[in-house]
Order: sequence, then C-alpha cells, then structure tokens
Amino acid sequence: MQPLPTTFVEAPRLSALTGAEVLLVSETFQHGGSFKYRAAHHVASHVAASTIVCASSGNFGQAMALACKLVGKRCVVVMPETSARVKIEAVRALGATVELIDTRVVTREARVAELVAASPGAYTASAFDDPLVIEGNASLGRELAGSGRAFDAVLVPIGGGGLSSGILSGLRRAGSEAAVFAAEPALANDAARSLREGRRVALESEPRTIADGARTRCVGVHPWAILKDGLAGIVEVSEEAIGRAVYLAFAHANLKLEPTGALAIAALLEDPARFARRRVVCVCSGGNVDADLYRSLLETYAPA
Amino acid sequence: MQPLPTTFVEAPRLSALTGAEVLLVSETFQHGGSFKYRAAHHVASHVAASTIVCASSGNFGQAMALACKLVGKRCVVVMPETSARVKIEAVRALGATVELIDTRVVTREARVAELVAASPGAYTASAFDDPLVIEGNASLGRELAGSGRAFDAVLVPIGGGGLSSGILSGLRRAGSEAAVFAAEPALANDAARSLREGRRVALESEPRTIADGARTRCVGVHPWAILKDGLAGIVEVSEEAIGRAVYLAFAHANLKLEPTGALAIAALLEDPARFARRRVVCVCSGGNVDADLYRSLLETYAPA
Repeated sequence: MQPLPTTFVEAPRLSALTGAEVLLVSETFQHGGSFKYRAAHHVASHVAASTIVCASSGNFGQAMALACKLVGKRCVVVMPETSARVKIEAVRALGATVELIDTRVVTREARVAELVAASPGAYTASAFDDPLVIEGNASLGRELAGSGRAFDAVLVPIGGGGLSSGILSGLRRAGSEAAVFAAEPALANDAARSLREGRRVALESEPRTIADGARTRCVGVHPWAILKDGLAGIVEVSEEAIGRAVYLAFAHANLKLEPTGALAIAALLEDPARFARRRVVCVCSGGNVDADLYRSLLETYAPA
Repeated sequence: MQPLPTTFVEAPRLSALTGAEVLLVSETFQHGGSFKYRAAHHVASHVAASTIVCASSGNFGQAMALACKLVGKRCVVVMPETSARVKIEAVRALGATVELIDTRVVTREARVAELVAASPGAYTASAFDDPLVIEGNASLGRELAGSGRAFDAVLVPIGGGGLSSGILSGLRRAGSEAAVFAAEPALANDAARSLREGRRVALESEPRTIADGARTRCVGVHPWAILKDGLAGIVEVSEEAIGRAVYLAFAHANLKLEPTGALAIAALLEDPARFARRRVVCVCSGGNVDADLYRSLLETYAPA
C-alpha cells in the first residue's frame, strides 16, 4: 500500500490573520494519520531483513507496524510501560509485538539493541536518522514541487530532522528553490542551537514540550548533513503559540491537528514579520491527538 | 473563484467498525467550510440580478455572501437576532448586509419578501429549493462519478434536499448507477415520511436536532421531483448516533465535522446491516462547529 498523496487545504482566514499567503499541506489523512507512513513504507519495502525493530510510543511505531504488516515482515516496537493504553493497543492491533520497558531501568536504545542481538539479521529502524527515512519523506517534497502551485517558502516541524531533511532534498531534486524553514518548540531547541553553533547540539534531557513528536534530544547525523547548509532558518515557537495554532487550525481551517502537526502554523504566529506577504506552505505533519488533550487545548485557546 | 474539488479521506478504521468499505468525501475544506459554496457560486454567477437576498443563519448565508462578494453583487442575509454573534460577524466580514429579525414577530420568509419588494429586481435565493442550487451541488456528483473510484452506494445528509438531489442528478448524468441514500435526523424526518407517503410531508414546527443544517420543515419542491423516484432509501438517525459519528470522525479519521456533516457516518452506525460489505461513500457536508459544542460532543461520546 503506497503512501497517499498529501491533502492541500486553502486557508484564507489564516492568511488574513498572519499576513502571509498561507497554504496548508496536511498529512493528517495519510495512512496512520501522520507523515510517518512515508518513511515506514520506504524502510519496510527496501530492507532485506524479515524483522524490523524500533522504539516509538507515537506515530512512527504505528506507521512501522502497518508498513511491516503490509509487506509481511515481523515488527517489534519498544515502548515505555507508561505509554497510553490506546497507543499500545493500536500497535498490537496492527500485528506488531510490543516490548514494554521501564525507562528508569533500561533506555529504549539499549532494549532495541538487546532485541536486535537476539534476532540476528533484524533491522533497527530509526524514526529519523536513516537515509531510507529521509528518502521516504522526500516524496512529500517531490509532491509539493510537482503540485503546480507557486510558493516562496515551506515551513516544516522539526524533531529529529527526518521530515525537514526529506522535504528539502525532495524539493531540490525536483528543481524547487523554495526556502525551507523549520518550526521547533523553544523548549526543545536543539536544532536551532545546532544551526547557530554550526554543529549538532544535544539537549541534556528529554524536553517537555506539548509537541510530543519533537521531543528528540538531538537532530540525527543524516538529517544534519542535509539541513546544516540547506535550511533557510529555524523559528523557535512557544508552547502558547503551539496551542493557539491547534485552535486556529480548528476554527479557521476545519483541520484537526496534533500539537506537533501545528508547529508550522505556530511559527507563522510567532514570527509573522518574517513571512508577511510571502506565499508560505505550512506542513501539518499529523493529527493524532487524544480527545482529552484536544478538548483542553480548545478550551484554553478559544477566545472567551 | 470556482468551488474547490472535494477531499477524499480513506477510513479503514471506520470500515472495521461498521463492516462497510467506507470512503469519506469531505466538503469541510471547501470555500466557507461546507458544500454550500457550490450552490452559492452557481446562483451568484447565473442570475442577472445585482442584489441577492436569502435567509440563513448558517453555512448558506456565509457561502452566499462570499460568492456575491466575488462576483460583485450585493447580498442581504436575513438572520434571527438570536444567531451566534460569530456567525453574524462572519457574514458581515464578507461584505453582506445582515438583517436581524425577531422570529416571534416576523418569519424569515416574510422579511425576505419585504426586502425583495423594496429592492426591485433582487433575486430571492433559497438554500435548497431552486434548480440553480441543485445544479451547483450536482458538481459534487460529477466529481464522484469521475473520480475513478468504485463504489456501490453514496450516503448524503438531507435537510431541504438540495445536496442529495444535486448529487443524485450529477451522478446519473455522469453515468453512475450507484444507489443514493439520504441520512436524516429522526427528530426531523420529514423527508423519510415524505418518501413513505409518496408526497411532500411538512413537520409542524422547526425540529430541534443537533444537526442544525437539517432543521428544515419540508423537502423543497424541486429536490422532491428528483428524490421521490431517485433515492434508494432514507436512514433516520438518532441524536446519539450523530454525536457518536462526530467523535468517531475525530478519533478514527482525523476529520473535524459539524453534526450535520456527520449524518452520513451516523447512518452507517444506525443501520450497519444495510451497508455491510458494500463500498459506501459517506458525504461529509461541512465542518463549521463552535469550539464549545465540539468540546462537549467529544466529552460525551469519547469512551470513558
């Protein structure tokens, strides 16, 4: 099952609000509800191994489980035992084996290494630091470049850098010179600090941003090689801008986004001057958010 | 500004839940956030009058205001003075004149007639009972037929019948023989009763269903001419099924729907046996719902 084409959503009301000419590109209707299936499908269909092991309590684990199921591979997903029950069940429902760990006792990486050692020939799938992941995500850059739509800039959420580096390389190979900006939670600004220092900088501990897809401590080696000279800039966004972006996508574009998926819109709110009057594509990377959290964001950020 | 093409959303989790092969067709990203722009655009660009008068406190008023603005016509929208402030402001922001009425003193129809009498040559736009409205909505039927997707049945919300009759005629003219079913709130079952009795039956008073786009008392004359022999059936849905459908679209398809927009999914929940193993297109007609109501639906219908 190939990845689905992305969904373009016009957003005149967000344009009026931000001063940019905004076009939303939504991966919320992708298989699994986020862009992650693009990479997972590419990995599952390109590695020879019959078993794939990964660590993810979020969208990547589900996407990998789905992709493995479809190509007939075994999939093992390492998740903290504190993960939401609904996420654990979703991965199991897709036929994957879930390995629950107590993160106070063993790290995800260590448990993945143990499992791979116990299953010779198994492939360790990183959610972002893998050329196959970047190549899978590049399909979205190619789609944008080939869409026939004109744009000056693309705003992309950044966590480990797999999506932004993929879009960047996909755009460039398809001949687009549009500027690519990353949108990163200020609480998890390893990528912004890396760009300033010209080298990969890691956070001391896992950041607590509400954008759970961007809680990586450091940009991956492979994404960094593409991003360090390719990115036009990184906008660091406040938690408040993220929450407000989730609300505005709901109220002004009928789009249900998870906090990470709203980072690009949040960047427009955070730094409108930078994008004023430019034709900006905001990549909305995913929509999987619990009803409880979503309700509380609507309650907090809707104007009284 | 032409109507936007509709958005197809795959829904494997809704398929698993209902036993049908479900494909969602969403008009929530249409100009104005609902299918109504299709009709409004067709009316505004086909009548000679320079002033268009309509009565609507919902999606049709906004769509008509937008369409008139774009073709340079004057638009007057009659709304009850009890309408939500945000809806009144939205119509005004689009350049239309809002005429607020006290519905205990004057009916919408009477006030529209007064305004048209005072503005010779003005066109009275019905939200559903007008061949131009049906023709505008037929574009969605043509799109479905021409999408290259295979389906056995189409489920469409019904209020005044403008959308269902439009889709039906668009499908048939494009050569599709797919069965068309209407989805109607049981609290507002004038269309179902009309179909049973073989003649247009009107409700005594405005029904109180949460699906505010289906609060019409009677199917229109023009839609009825198409629907009476063309519809394969009408599914009457409970208020509970509507609320549950809004939640399931959120949780299982990342789709934000207003209650009326969720009627087709609600019909699948109400009568799964009728659609089991059939390839069913559910038309999700609109997404404009207040944050407060949406939050309360998520709270009520999310599993504990």
